[in-house]
Amino acid sequence: MKNVSIALLGCGTVGKGVVDLLQMNGHLISEQTDTHIHIKHVLVRDIEKYKNVGLDENLHLTDNFKDIIEDDEVEIVVEVMGSADFAKACIEECFRRGKSVVSANKDVIADCGIGLLKLAQENGADFQFEASVAGGIPIIRPMYSSLNANQIEEIIGIMNGTTNYILTNMTDRGLTYEEALKEAQEKGYAEADPTSDVGGFDAARKIAILAKLGFHAYVNVKDVSIEGIEGVTKEDIAHATAMGYAIKLLAVAEKNTDGISLAVHPAFVPKDHPLANVGGAYNAVYVRGNCVGDVMLYGQGAGSLPTASAVVSDIMNVIQHINTEMTGKRPYLWHETAVKDAAENKAPYYIRLIAANAPGVLANMSGVFAKHGISIRSLIQKDETKEAAEIVILVDSTPCKTVRFALNEIEQLTCIHRICNAIRVIEV
Amino acid sequence: MKNVSIALLGCGTVGKGVVDLLQMNGHLISEQTDTHIHIKHVLVRDIEKYKNVGLDENLHLTDNFKDIIEDDEVEIVVEVMGSADFAKACIEECFRRGKSVVSANKDVIADCGIGLLKLAQENGADFQFEASVAGGIPIIRPMYSSLNANQIEEIIGIMNGTTNYILTNMTDRGLTYEEALKEAQEKGYAEADPTSDVGGFDAARKIAILAKLGFHAYVNVKDVSIEGIEGVTKEDIAHATAMGYAIKLLAVAEKNTDGISLAVHPAFVPKDHPLANVGGAYNAVYVRGNCVGDVMLYGQGAGSLPTASAVVSDIMNVIQHINTEMTGKRPYLWHETAVKDAAENKAPYYIRLIAANAPGVLANMSGVFAKHGISIRSLIQKDETKEAAEIVILVDSTPCKTVRFALNEIEQLTCIHRICNAIRVIEV
Repeated sequence: MKNVSIALLGCGTVGKGVVDLLQMNGHLISEQTDTHIHIKHVLVRDIEKYKNVGLDENLHLTDNFKDIIEDDEVEIVVEVMGSADFAKACIEECFRRGKSVVSANKDVIADCGIGLLKLAQENGADFQFEASVAGGIPIIRPMYSSLNANQIEEIIGIMNGTTNYILTNMTDRGLTYEEALKEAQEKGYAEADPTSDVGGFDAARKIAILAKLGFHAYVNVKDVSIEGIEGVTKEDIAHATAMGYAIKLLAVAEKNTDGISLAVHPAFVPKDHPLANVGGAYNAVYVRGNCVGDVMLYGQGAGSLPTASAVVSDIMNVIQHINTEMTGKRPYLWHETAVKDAAENKAPYYIRLIAANAPGVLANMSGVFAKHGISIRSLIQKDETKEAAEIVILVDSTPCKTVRFALNEIEQLTCIHRICNAIRVIEV
Repeated sequence: MKNVSIALLGCGTVGKGVVDLLQMNGHLISEQTDTHIHIKHVLVRDIEKYKNVGLDENLHLTDNFKDIIEDDEVEIVVEVMGSADFAKACIEECFRRGKSVVSANKDVIADCGIGLLKLAQENGADFQFEASVAGGIPIIRPMYSSLNANQIEEIIGIMNGTTNYILTNMTDRGLTYEEALKEAQEKGYAEADPTSDVGGFDAARKIAILAKLGFHAYVNVKDVSIEGIEGVTKEDIAHATAMGYAIKLLAVAEKNTDGISLAVHPAFVPKDHPLANVGGAYNAVYVRGNCVGDVMLYGQGAGSLPTASAVVSDIMNVIQHINTEMTGKRPYLWHETAVKDAAENKAPYYIRLIAANAPGVLANMSGVFAKHGISIRSLIQKDETKEAAEIVILVDSTPCKTVRFALNEIEQLTCIHRICNAIRVIEV
């Protein structure tokens, strides 16, 4: 049996998961790869902190990256730190020394993935990052090695556990956004500052990574039009449920003859769409290819062992490449592709607003819709009080931009108190 | 750009799909692999038959396998014939000549997959068969290259489109089994002799293939306990719906400390289980690993282009291996593992029977259950007429074998007219 020495950069949730998994399933992994994996170093910021957390005493903890980069025995470096700049610098240094890298770092890969893949290849090293998107769900490798005979037309992901937990609990238990967020924070599903999750930024990084691979395109997080779930209310959820939809935070990448568009936004998903039933901490990625049709990959999007499952499968792949002298030899294809404004994409919309309970309101409002060529599919006026009425409108497929223009104009009407929300509707 | 010559054995639905896909997406495929794929020969039984079906005139049709096997330029042979014995002989001959093979042939792989993989490896050739299970859904490669860090505990598949079409239409439209089967036959979803599908034999082959790979085990179709959907009635479906379940034909592979068990049977699946919503011609495979937890892969399980998507992704993988001199070098791990009788597995059961409408029926029947240690979870007596009553029982988790013993005994009771059905219930 061969031996391979690896080093971990970071030993947080994912790093600890890798250590645990290699202990639990080490025998099966060695048998499959005919190689024994030895964790030679673990880079941590504060060695003292890790002295009593149940790590194997034989693990060599270090706070000096030099111990790792200068150790020629270390062939694979597993980067599970989370930070962006330092991680990137470490990864680059590994490639320059011919070491292969497995990373779970979505920030680094969303921003610099293609550059790093090229650098790895130039140096005959592997760069694998299955765990950077959707935790344990196999999606990165299937995208480039199982769905690769297809022209990928669309990728839709539910890839943020925090927002999915919040939306699921608002739906199932009638919680307000604030109540559900507070509970998520108390249970550790949301950070004290939840912006990255609820604002859609985390999902944006993940869809940027998938779009790169699926469309073979130079795209970046900056190309993603981002809208979070902060504006989704209990009332929106109730209307969605009554109308046969679930509200989900979707990350959507589309490609057509005009180019690529990338967006993260809440959406009404029909209850019989497979994505509508992806609840709680589960993630799912829906891919449409021009030959395979619709494919969905579903599983746990986070967590110590599920994420470690993806990291270790990457390590096993690198080992196989080392054993067959194939590291750095997988070809990748990248194209310059036009990225268009996602606001030009068409979708039906759910619109909720509060209007004065006065004559002429509907006439004024529908006049604005008509002027912009927006066709009203259904309109329900509800919860009337003496002064105000809630109006819920479903409009036919319309460019996002046009809906915004029309709503800006409607908001100026004196009879309109407030536009509460406008949410895209996904059609099956 | 490099060139690779391939040959197709067979040009039916899947073979034609491969030809079409390579035409549609050929440019993208060449770019990714830096290799141009040339279909040099197509083996068909009757050349005349293929003269006017829209195939490229430049394709070389032959009815002689020698043209292919003796052509040293052909590096990859794509076996999409469907027949078993001749296909197996062709595949073996290819390996002996060092040619790699991509196959969609579930019969051959279920029966002889491990032997063929070994023969391929001995001869430095690749053997890939992603399309043999669940059409375009990535499952074979994810199983051995993405979920491989896990001890796989359970695999549950909905992998037969015909039965799923029948059960979905019985559920959604209230059709009887006979009506739904007739419609499936008229629409081409079921064969004139539907036994292989409705009897569960097709699904059995697929679960045998997945169990081999997931459990690294020498298992065979003969190890699968098989029960089809012929006995599922409109009444069972109605009860399932009322109780919050969907009836699905499941192929189940389980591994625990006792060994492996393999079974195909209809089952009650709770409506909020992701498998319950897999409708019509869609397939899904649910995998539980000891670290990754639950993962589900979903998509179209058949059809010309979806299946070709899997075949061509295999071809692309082989090309990459040819280009890096890696064919035949992927290691596989196989263990001798005890296969136990699936009838020893425990599950809750739904039981429906018709009894005389007379005193003492429940006492007699529940006495038999009690004697066998079977605990009744719920019992509903319905549709009473003067002479007979329908009784629907849900029993707690019980070994399949014990349920059968008890029902055999109950059937002997004079007050019992008929045991209609006993169907396992899946718990989330």
